[in-house]
Amino acid sequence: MLQLKTLLCVFVLSFPIARAAEINVADHGVVPGIDATYSLNRLIESLKDQSDVTLVFPKGQYDFYPENALEMYRAVANHDNGLKRMGFPLFDCKNITIDGGDSVFMFHGRMVPVTIEGTRGATLKNFSIDWIRSFHAELTIVESNEADKSFVVETDPKLYPFSINDGKVLFDRYGQQDPIGSNMVFDPKTRSPIYRTKDYAVNSNRAKVTALGKNRFRIENAVKNAPPVGSVLVTYGVHPTSRLCPAIHITNSSDVKIENVTVYDAGGMGLIVERTDNISLDGMVVTSTEDRIVSTRADATHFIGCKGTIRLENCRFEHMLDDGINVHGAYVKVAEYLGNNEFVCEISHFQQWGLIFGQPGDKIALMSRTTVLPFYETTIKAIKTLNEHRFVMSVSDLPESLPEGPLSVENLTWYPDLVMKNNTIRENRARSVLVTTKGKVMIENNYFSSQMHGILIEGDNNKWYESGAVQDVTIRNNVFDNIGFAVTERYPLLASPLLTAEQHMGEGQYHRNIHFTGNTINSFNGLLVNARSVKGLDISGNKMQFSTDYPVVDEGPSIVLEYCDDVTIQGNKASGFAKPLTVKATDTTDPVMDANGGFESE
Amino acid sequence: MLQLKTLLCVFVLSFPIARAAEINVADHGVVPGIDATYSLNRLIESLKDQSDVTLVFPKGQYDFYPENALEMYRAVANHDNGLKRMGFPLFDCKNITIDGGDSVFMFHGRMVPVTIEGTRGATLKNFSIDWIRSFHAELTIVESNEADKSFVVETDPKLYPFSINDGKVLFDRYGQQDPIGSNMVFDPKTRSPIYRTKDYAVNSNRAKVTALGKNRFRIENAVKNAPPVGSVLVTYGVHPTSRLCPAIHITNSSDVKIENVTVYDAGGMGLIVERTDNISLDGMVVTSTEDRIVSTRADATHFIGCKGTIRLENCRFEHMLDDGINVHGAYVKVAEYLGNNEFVCEISHFQQWGLIFGQPGDKIALMSRTTVLPFYETTIKAIKTLNEHRFVMSVSDLPESLPEGPLSVENLTWYPDLVMKNNTIRENRARSVLVTTKGKVMIENNYFSSQMHGILIEGDNNKWYESGAVQDVTIRNNVFDNIGFAVTERYPLLASPLLTAEQHMGEGQYHRNIHFTGNTINSFNGLLVNARSVKGLDISGNKMQFSTDYPVVDEGPSIVLEYCDDVTIQGNKASGFAKPLTVKATDTTDPVMDANGGFESE
Repeated sequence: MLQLKTLLCVFVLSFPIARAAEINVADHGVVPGIDATYSLNRLIESLKDQSDVTLVFPKGQYDFYPENALEMYRAVANHDNGLKRMGFPLFDCKNITIDGGDSVFMFHGRMVPVTIEGTRGATLKNFSIDWIRSFHAELTIVESNEADKSFVVETDPKLYPFSINDGKVLFDRYGQQDPIGSNMVFDPKTRSPIYRTKDYAVNSNRAKVTALGKNRFRIENAVKNAPPVGSVLVTYGVHPTSRLCPAIHITNSSDVKIENVTVYDAGGMGLIVERTDNISLDGMVVTSTEDRIVSTRADATHFIGCKGTIRLENCRFEHMLDDGINVHGAYVKVAEYLGNNEFVCEISHFQQWGLIFGQPGDKIALMSRTTVLPFYETTIKAIKTLNEHRFVMSVSDLPESLPEGPLSVENLTWYPDLVMKNNTIRENRARSVLVTTKGKVMIENNYFSSQMHGILIEGDNNKWYESGAVQDVTIRNNVFDNIGFAVTERYPLLASPLLTAEQHMGEGQYHRNIHFTGNTINSFNGLLVNARSVKGLDISGNKMQFSTDYPVVDEGPSIVLEYCDDVTIQGNKASGFAKPLTVKATDTTDPVMDANGGFESE
Repeated sequence: MLQLKTLLCVFVLSFPIARAAEINVADHGVVPGIDATYSLNRLIESLKDQSDVTLVFPKGQYDFYPENALEMYRAVANHDNGLKRMGFPLFDCKNITIDGGDSVFMFHGRMVPVTIEGTRGATLKNFSIDWIRSFHAELTIVESNEADKSFVVETDPKLYPFSINDGKVLFDRYGQQDPIGSNMVFDPKTRSPIYRTKDYAVNSNRAKVTALGKNRFRIENAVKNAPPVGSVLVTYGVHPTSRLCPAIHITNSSDVKIENVTVYDAGGMGLIVERTDNISLDGMVVTSTEDRIVSTRADATHFIGCKGTIRLENCRFEHMLDDGINVHGAYVKVAEYLGNNEFVCEISHFQQWGLIFGQPGDKIALMSRTTVLPFYETTIKAIKTLNEHRFVMSVSDLPESLPEGPLSVENLTWYPDLVMKNNTIRENRARSVLVTTKGKVMIENNYFSSQMHGILIEGDNNKWYESGAVQDVTIRNNVFDNIGFAVTERYPLLASPLLTAEQHMGEGQYHRNIHFTGNTINSFNGLLVNARSVKGLDISGNKMQFSTDYPVVDEGPSIVLEYCDDVTIQGNKASGFAKPLTVKATDTTDPVMDANGGFESE
């Protein structure tokens, strides 16, 4: 595995790196057939003071092992923080391009393939990322006993090595012993979660496992319904060791492009981006390989606290164990007001620990944690990090008195625009798109077919603490195909803040200006839009067609409105459904409704 | 708990810190009765560019909570690495003194009380360190059933909160749920491990635990012998969460003094020192409190890769769950020779991960990993850290060819002298002293009464990888009282490298010049010295007295010699034993033996 010695010849003869724009990595010991990690790390380090460099990889499979990889303690949003070993540690670069030449970058351990931090201008193109061993396990159901709810699974111990002791199965992943943990049953024919996945959820703690030869074991005492023979149980471990390795991590950077990059696996997300100004993805693909049904352990892509424009075009995200894309900010708690315009703040969600909430000059909003509505805008003067959870923030100015009750803050400067065109997101657990940003959002000509909601515009200050009441969202001319086969009540569009029992609506709506127009919805459940606390909602010109791909279900009104204002519903057409689709409005100013075929008010 | 607001008044009015040598911390918001952490962290930070500063604490109890503490990822030798929250983060100081004024520094969570790094001149004096809740649990045996090997324990759930589920007990320590894990039975009368502790070891994995009311539970299926009623089972968790919090961590520093400092508890060692040049301890005490039998979770003090002089005088270390003091270097593996005088090296033991093995200019020895004997000395030219496990090291020169077989390196520059005078180490698990350094060692006028060996001069390249074949050790006029009550074969002095089956003696002895003279040994087992691979061993003028404090045992020869050379045994006197004590020599040049009363050769 380690063949550094052979490389050294290259180093010793080593060409001093010219100021040339293009560097052939082979000239620096980065070649197929060996552990390329140390040579690549060293080459990248040698470029520290250069800008406008392209690293060119002759086409091939490059292997990266963790043993000699550069390591750093890294906080990674929505992942498990810790020491990370890195394949491409791109720190503080200026206009760097990685041109993979259609190569495969194959990883052999707990590593983060690409890290981009503090970089102005970066292009990743023409390569794929994969791991020699996946971060999940796929177990085919070969016997299913509905009487005692037991079932037998078969798997390839080479792909998913496991051991069974004391009635528990542990999967061996790069020296880590993972229990079943999170899990989901997939349909190998569609490579999607099976219809009504929840019915087959395995209780990992209760499960009693018995070995049956080398590649089979029986699972008892774990499910309410035994999964059907032929379906595939996908198991993917537990926090804090189940989201260690995103494929690409980008933070504190600007002007990043990802073009023609494919991610086949990841012990986390395909792409996680934090505090980055302008990023575009063109032809990024997240998908599974021939011998695996599932691709990434978590979301295909995820963006937190970015600005500028996030642009996705011609991408395809499929077979993930979580959402296609999520764009949001963070609600951070005020732990204590110290006086003198100074707050102790606490990061609210454990998977945001270590997040850079803001920097001096950023505009922020202060809000009640109860109503989640802002009451004052001010500017950060100084930030001092205490630890991963807390920081002290001083601001330029405050109102004369602060309201009673718990407060939160959100960063107004770091909200991006989002443009999504001609992308496909499908056959994944969870949603196609989550978006909560105050920037302009355009989602056009995409194909979505996800297990839960198609597009979720949420925002919550109590669970994930994902901030960003929207201001201007257009969702037009997309296809929503069989959305919501998780069942039940999953909509092509759900727009609503997620409030706790203690939280309540304040005065005025949370979300603004959402246009859902001209979309085509192939639907087995007749659901279209659910909106709560939205001012300015246009649902027009959408075409709903009855689909027989999943069993027909009646899940209530097609359009549900609660505490909305300024709603227009017109020119929508529903066809093929057994009865007219309905609209239900509560605590909502009368919507303008006109020329909707196949719809009626409740 | 957090009352930062009241403090801020102090800050706002804040006295600009004068260039005065003495700073009363009360002037900076560090006062009893509140969480003093943030104010203290902030005060220390404000002193960054000053030297010769004394922080004076008016006498009182100061409380430190983790919530607002400064945090950093820290590798700590012989501990579990990770994010550490710090009470006194003393980084890059010059001549700083903490004068506690006999105060108590009380910690309320997973924190490292004192961290000293990159500091030239530091004095810690006149304070004690304690935690509101211990890192171990003490369980008194109230019923003991020898027939079925079950026993019932009682404990105070306020001191040692626990919960029992599914037959397992978990102890709640600062949000961490610790199983029984490591454990040992203590005698509450002597506050020492009970005689023959091993007989009562609890198998934490097998143990079946049943609650019996609020403060009692039964343990079954866990021991070979049920511990006696009245004894105390001490349980202290599992790696990697059982050694998170040493009381004092010092690294990369010089000229450090610790005077009149008491450590009552620690989730790790009382003091761990790495790569520090000159450190003296005068009147440092590690002991337990009124309501606890046990003090620190691990060694009282531990020194790795230091130089200059380590001086301990008038110290008392007792009731620890591990050794009194350990002084050593590290054997680091050569993972690969890259040619060009460059090696990839790998830190050998997981509790040394992150260790700074050396820096340019340090002299190192290269050795066979099989014989543990050095074959070449050279100098470090450059070191590049890859990750916590590995670094690349280039050296000034090498022999023409390297021998076959696995190699190791040790750092010759960073071996300290050790002076220990007038100290007491007693009533602890394990040894009083471990020492493997090439420096001069003087151990004089101390009192040792430990459960395993009194003084262990070991060195091993296969388990702990603690390096340092000794060159000049004098152990004189000490009292060794009932050493080895762990039973069996624990000696006042054991000097021998620890070799595996694959390792073997090379040519020439490993240790050199050990003088064990004028000591008084009160002994129930008649054991004096066991030496292997030592050249130059003087065992003279020692007085052995039979002790009835523990049951008399016959554990073989009093002096055991194997592959030793230049041995003198003279003027030793043994009295009170039932028969003459014996000397057994194997593969050893005939020792000079003269005028030993109560001894005979085998």
